[in-house]
Amino acid sequence: MKSKTEYLTLNTEKKIQIIRITDQVENVVSKSGVKDGLVLVNPMHITAAVVVNDNESGLHKDYLRVLENLVPYEGEYRHNDTGEDNGAAHIWRQMMGHQVVLPITNGKLDFGPWEQIFYFEFDGMRQKRILIKVIGE
Amino acid sequence: MKSKTEYLTLNTEKKIQIIRITDQVENVVSKSGVKDGLVLVNPMHITAAVVVNDNESGLHKDYLRVLENLVPYEGEYRHNDTGEDNGAAHIWRQMMGHQVVLPITNGKLDFGPWEQIFYFEFDGMRQKRILIKVIGE
Amino acid sequence: MKSKTEYLTLNTEKKIQIIRITDQVENVVSKSGVKDGLVLVNPMHITAAVVVNDNESGLHKDYLRVLENLVPYEGEYRHNDTGEDNGAAHIWRQMMGHQVVLPITNGKLDFGPWEQIFYFEFDGMRQKRILIKVIGE
Repeated sequence: MKSKTEYLTLNTEKKIQIIRITDQVENVVSKSGVKDGLVLVNPMHITAAVVVNDNESGLHKDYLRVLENLVPYEGEYRHNDTGEDNGAAHIWRQMMGHQVVLPITNGKLDFGPWEQIFYFEFDGMRQKRILIKVIGE
Repeated sequence: MKSKTEYLTLNTEKKIQIIRITDQVENVVSKSGVKDGLVLVNPMHITAAVVVNDNESGLHKDYLRVLENLVPYEGEYRHNDTGEDNGAAHIWRQMMGHQVVLPITNGKLDFGPWEQIFYFEFDGMRQKRILIKVIGE
Repeated sequence: MKSKTEYLTLNTEKKIQIIRITDQVENVVSKSGVKDGLVLVNPMHITAAVVVNDNESGLHKDYLRVLENLVPYEGEYRHNDTGEDNGAAHIWRQMMGHQVVLPITNGKLDFGPWEQIFYFEFDGMRQKRILIKVIGE
């Protein structure tokens, strides 16, 4: 079994931001030399999610509007009694699905026509890390 | 390490439909010869989800009613300004959890008494694929 | 490839309860002897979720309040026509993300500063199992 682990460091310009990271993940897969296996893409912070969906800016606005509608960012959260202001961000990350595990076949991400990988930051403007771990052969 | 990858092709009769796929996944696990490992079950399209839950038709109606209630299928979505009509479907798939990774022990899915695998199609009536990748030994 | 599978048995005192299980998962990782790989943490019951987030009791209350607000526990569910009373619990588990796959590096969970593993029980007061499966080398 081969494996390779890399940490992608990001610092978003905005508190809430969606960033495409397909190329970075593909690059780690390529460097790993794994032809057949899995790659875990996992935010190491708990107010962010890694999501596979469409590279379409209107849809990205829809996601954020729906989350705001269901769980308002400036709402009342017991978590914020601790001095934090990111209660909603912790909840949004769960609702979007926190992480993904992706297939590698013939040394590449085995993706359908529209699958792209995104980092959904819900409490940014500070340094965050995403772990990319490839295992396989 | 052994691995096996198969692609399950589906074309649902309805736009929104829930289909049990436990047997198809179990079949790939069996063919793989893997006795201990993991199987990724991942829709290759971004308006569908793979879900482990109960094989009970009332519950399936509940899921769809809740999704419709929270994120109306015919609502207003910026994504639909592109000419698409599936904005909600992209969001529903995230809210249900897009994919699953399942355990294989003694050559079989290592499931609790009620775990069943379903494909939740939210924009069907056209050909879609589900990737099933087994790794292990 | 090495692997190790253990089953954690729990019986919560309350119907709805959040329990930290980081130490139990770390213990299985340690016993597995795997230095680099993945660990799947998966509830074997379909009204519970395994979640990575913050060890902060106010946030845990926020999660439960948001779920109750969006999908009331005592609401009307077709699933409950079967004699069950846990329709909402099946839906909550999907909304929180049913399972996690976690990275192992240098023989330990490769976690960010705030990542902790929790079992979210939504229909407890009876014996439940969580599967922990480590694979790697």
